[in-house]
Amino acid sequence: MNANKIPDIIIGRLPIYLRALQRMADKGVQTTSSQELGERVGISAAQIRKDISQFGEFGKQGTGYRISFLIDKLREIMKIDRIWDVAVVGAGDMGHALARYPGFVNRGFRIAMVFDNDQSKVDQQIGEFVVQDTSSMSEAIKEAGIQVAMLTVPAAAAQEVTDMLIKAGVKAILNYAPISLSVPEDVRVQHIDPATHLQRMTYYL
Amino acid sequence: MNANKIPDIIIGRLPIYLRALQRMADKGVQTTSSQELGERVGISAAQIRKDISQFGEFGKQGTGYRISFLIDKLREIMKIDRIWDVAVVGAGDMGHALARYPGFVNRGFRIAMVFDNDQSKVDQQIGEFVVQDTSSMSEAIKEAGIQVAMLTVPAAAAQEVTDMLIKAGVKAILNYAPISLSVPEDVRVQHIDPATHLQRMTYYL
Repeated sequence: MNANKIPDIIIGRLPIYLRALQRMADKGVQTTSSQELGERVGISAAQIRKDISQFGEFGKQGTGYRISFLIDKLREIMKIDRIWDVAVVGAGDMGHALARYPGFVNRGFRIAMVFDNDQSKVDQQIGEFVVQDTSSMSEAIKEAGIQVAMLTVPAAAAQEVTDMLIKAGVKAILNYAPISLSVPEDVRVQHIDPATHLQRMTYYL
Repeated sequence: MNANKIPDIIIGRLPIYLRALQRMADKGVQTTSSQELGERVGISAAQIRKDISQFGEFGKQGTGYRISFLIDKLREIMKIDRIWDVAVVGAGDMGHALARYPGFVNRGFRIAMVFDNDQSKVDQQIGEFVVQDTSSMSEAIKEAGIQVAMLTVPAAAAQEVTDMLIKAGVKAILNYAPISLSVPEDVRVQHIDPATHLQRMTYYL
């Protein structure tokens, strides 16, 4: 099992499987098949078997997958069998929504800090957080050893903030700014841009 | 050119190209190459040429792409050479952020309506919108001919609301609820779930 050998497209499907499995577990379901899982996530059973088998033999012919076991394995593979502290940079509407988003619980992440460079937002309370000044960001992130950040600053500021985050040790950035970021090879970026998601669908309308 | 023949993975890259091209145009750049575009979006030049050539001959050997022409073509292909009205269902933190999100301007979409079933939110003002009661949603969406919706309701309510939207004529749903939705074949769903995006990156940490 080598991080470099498994295609990123497969890695991208694992969180989808995990989400569906966790919902089944929440409902008290104990076992599932690649067919059933496939119907829930819209991916073929063959693809699911192939994806999961990249990491070992987690199911049994005929009896399928034990859900709790597969959840544990997937969490281990994705390294979310621990809690990652996350910094939110940008305390606008989206930063607010993320700081109070209930969907991170039990999924491997915890918002730890919220930053903004707007002095009218600094020291403001958002849920359980106090917005900190971006000028103290590098030091705070370094000190806390934070490797994961969510970026909700305007597009024009996104690259500059990204450079600061990377210097401070951040290795994974979830980017809400509608701009592609340049980062070194050892830093991962994922984009969340609702307009691109919508554009991808209107093609089919 | 047939919607069924071009792989969805290619369609998914077009909005990324468009976003980068639009930023170049905003800066006054007039032409680009697949190499330059590739560096900006982190996709190989060969892949970009191959993707774009699926739709016609939009570049010239040696001189590259005229940015404004390629932007027009991509907008036409993705059917965002028009404005799509969008309904937001769920007026919580995320619904608020979307209703006031500035990133849809000039990208083919306009928020037209915001709904919630929580009576304490109904009639509340969010930016330029008044939150409407979900009980009037089907009729309002049908009447306005809305085909695109963004779903920011809790996971437990998401499937029920989806069924209502589809009955009312919605064909494209951007789903912020952390749950996979069952929809008929002619309805497209895209998911935005920050936890899955983060999980996809921690694998590499």
